[in-house]
Amino acid sequence: MKLATLKDGSRDGQLTVVSRDLKQAVIADGIAPTLQRALDDWSFIAPQLQKLYEDLHDGRAHRSFDFDPARCMAPLPRAYQWVDGSTYVSHVERVRRSRHAEMPASFQNDPLIYQGGSDDFIGPTDDILLASEEWGIDFEGEVAVMTDDVPMGVQADAALAHVRLLMLVNDVSLRNLVPAELAKGFGFYQAKPASSFSPVAVTPDELGQDWQEGKLHLPLRVTWNGVQVGKPNAGVDMVFNFGQLIAHLCKTRNVRAGTIVGSGAVSNKDESKGYACIAEKRALEMIADGEAKTPFMHFGDTIRIEMLDANGKSIFGAIHQQVAQYKK
Amino acid sequence: MKLATLKDGSRDGQLTVVSRDLKQAVIADGIAPTLQRALDDWSFIAPQLQKLYEDLHDGRAHRSFDFDPARCMAPLPRAYQWVDGSTYVSHVERVRRSRHAEMPASFQNDPLIYQGGSDDFIGPTDDILLASEEWGIDFEGEVAVMTDDVPMGVQADAALAHVRLLMLVNDVSLRNLVPAELAKGFGFYQAKPASSFSPVAVTPDELGQDWQEGKLHLPLRVTWNGVQVGKPNAGVDMVFNFGQLIAHLCKTRNVRAGTIVGSGAVSNKDESKGYACIAEKRALEMIADGEAKTPFMHFGDTIRIEMLDANGKSIFGAIHQQVAQYKK
Repeated sequence: MKLATLKDGSRDGQLTVVSRDLKQAVIADGIAPTLQRALDDWSFIAPQLQKLYEDLHDGRAHRSFDFDPARCMAPLPRAYQWVDGSTYVSHVERVRRSRHAEMPASFQNDPLIYQGGSDDFIGPTDDILLASEEWGIDFEGEVAVMTDDVPMGVQADAALAHVRLLMLVNDVSLRNLVPAELAKGFGFYQAKPASSFSPVAVTPDELGQDWQEGKLHLPLRVTWNGVQVGKPNAGVDMVFNFGQLIAHLCKTRNVRAGTIVGSGAVSNKDESKGYACIAEKRALEMIADGEAKTPFMHFGDTIRIEMLDANGKSIFGAIHQQVAQYKK
Repeated sequence: MKLATLKDGSRDGQLTVVSRDLKQAVIADGIAPTLQRALDDWSFIAPQLQKLYEDLHDGRAHRSFDFDPARCMAPLPRAYQWVDGSTYVSHVERVRRSRHAEMPASFQNDPLIYQGGSDDFIGPTDDILLASEEWGIDFEGEVAVMTDDVPMGVQADAALAHVRLLMLVNDVSLRNLVPAELAKGFGFYQAKPASSFSPVAVTPDELGQDWQEGKLHLPLRVTWNGVQVGKPNAGVDMVFNFGQLIAHLCKTRNVRAGTIVGSGAVSNKDESKGYACIAEKRALEMIADGEAKTPFMHFGDTIRIEMLDANGKSIFGAIHQQVAQYKK
């Protein structure tokens, strides 16, 4: 099934079931008011949402309406945990090289992750509001999963069974703030402003054979100012799958319902697949020409991130945002 | 006023008003079911809680009962954001030296912070469950504040007005996991398991003159296995106050209601004040003798963290926990 959260003036929005073709929707308020509440009690709530999803397709859902992604918040407008991996070896290798940093020796056997801010996500068509272009505004197209409760000490295979929903992310990054922040040694904070998510989150069964071994084997389409700049396959060159990422998180902690885990910027070794973040393009330019020529984003720029199934149909709906200047 | 969250079998517990002397309590369910809900609408809810607090002291609160810290969850059992600073210069200097790392050059003008896990906090008397003593189990006694909504771009003075509650934290740390994790460059994750918080959170007005210029000017009493090992003053040697920390967070993001910001392990340059984390004691031993002699915590060890007012009365109640072995 496919789930969305509609803007209703509240902090957590209104849980909504969306049809497979993203054309129709129905409010799920008789089942659970918010997606967090559904995840808190997933085994009990999910079958009821599934029934409503089937009713929606059978024309038996009362008060269904046309689905409009512009009315969407992030599926979880705020979450108790957002952890982003960096699982694509070509991304890590290129971006590190671009900031003259070493690729960590442990990269092939120890996942690289960071704990991100989760109190203020933005919707799929909301503006990306930032005060300064000088910060080096970049997009990062990613795949993410949402879990229910996962116990401390879980192994990777068992962890994978806790993936309840998948979605797309734009992990907005401020590249010019990264070096000073990482030099302090405690990870990102200011360099990672609010992230945005796709209009809908989908259960793994919606993905069929494209969801295999904890990876989503489809191209992520990234379009910047109307020009497609990347279509890397999210299932290719991913060094750790989502089960391994979740198991990594659970080594010393429980992971609680509604935790979101990201793949990191999708990237393929095959350069013809383009890029899902500008930093990679710039790194490749530096390697080739000794100079990064592609600028970061300007106010007014647009970014579209989407994934199509084998029939060319959008799975998650599109993240489609404009960068705009934040004024206090 | 003083607020607590009681265990009731739910994820978010039951919001409770507690008397100043921590002896009586009354459920606030007629006002707000959870502390998060109160923070979501603080200007409307807080005066109602304040009225109940006054009624409790006047003997006019219906169904009041004896307050028992053992029934408490963390004031926010799960939160949308937990950011921990490292604001005590002597702590940073000693701990960095103990792991042969440099003190960041920017430390005096750019706060050192990390984004922590907030989906699974533990209560003040809950066991600290960990699988291995080999990880180097340590406590960190800290002060923390809770905010309501703070807008992006706020300045430090204005940020301070968004501090709605204060509490104590035990930011449990796994010292032997720190070096490898920080070497990867993206900050802590496995080295920072679930944190625990004091039984009650208190509004700034409860602290009178001890809350000044965004710092809490009282000794933090730290007792390990029944022996007081530290009483550093939380208002001394704190390089950045909480207003400055919050302003730092807001440079590129909004900070949303229920955000918790920690001071980092309290530490004074005056070594006679002892220590609020074992890593500091070990660092001092290494400097003096070339060898750290004090071991980290063992299963069965207890840790008590508390703060008393000028009359010797406990302000927040005590964090009082035992370390126990986690078994799957």
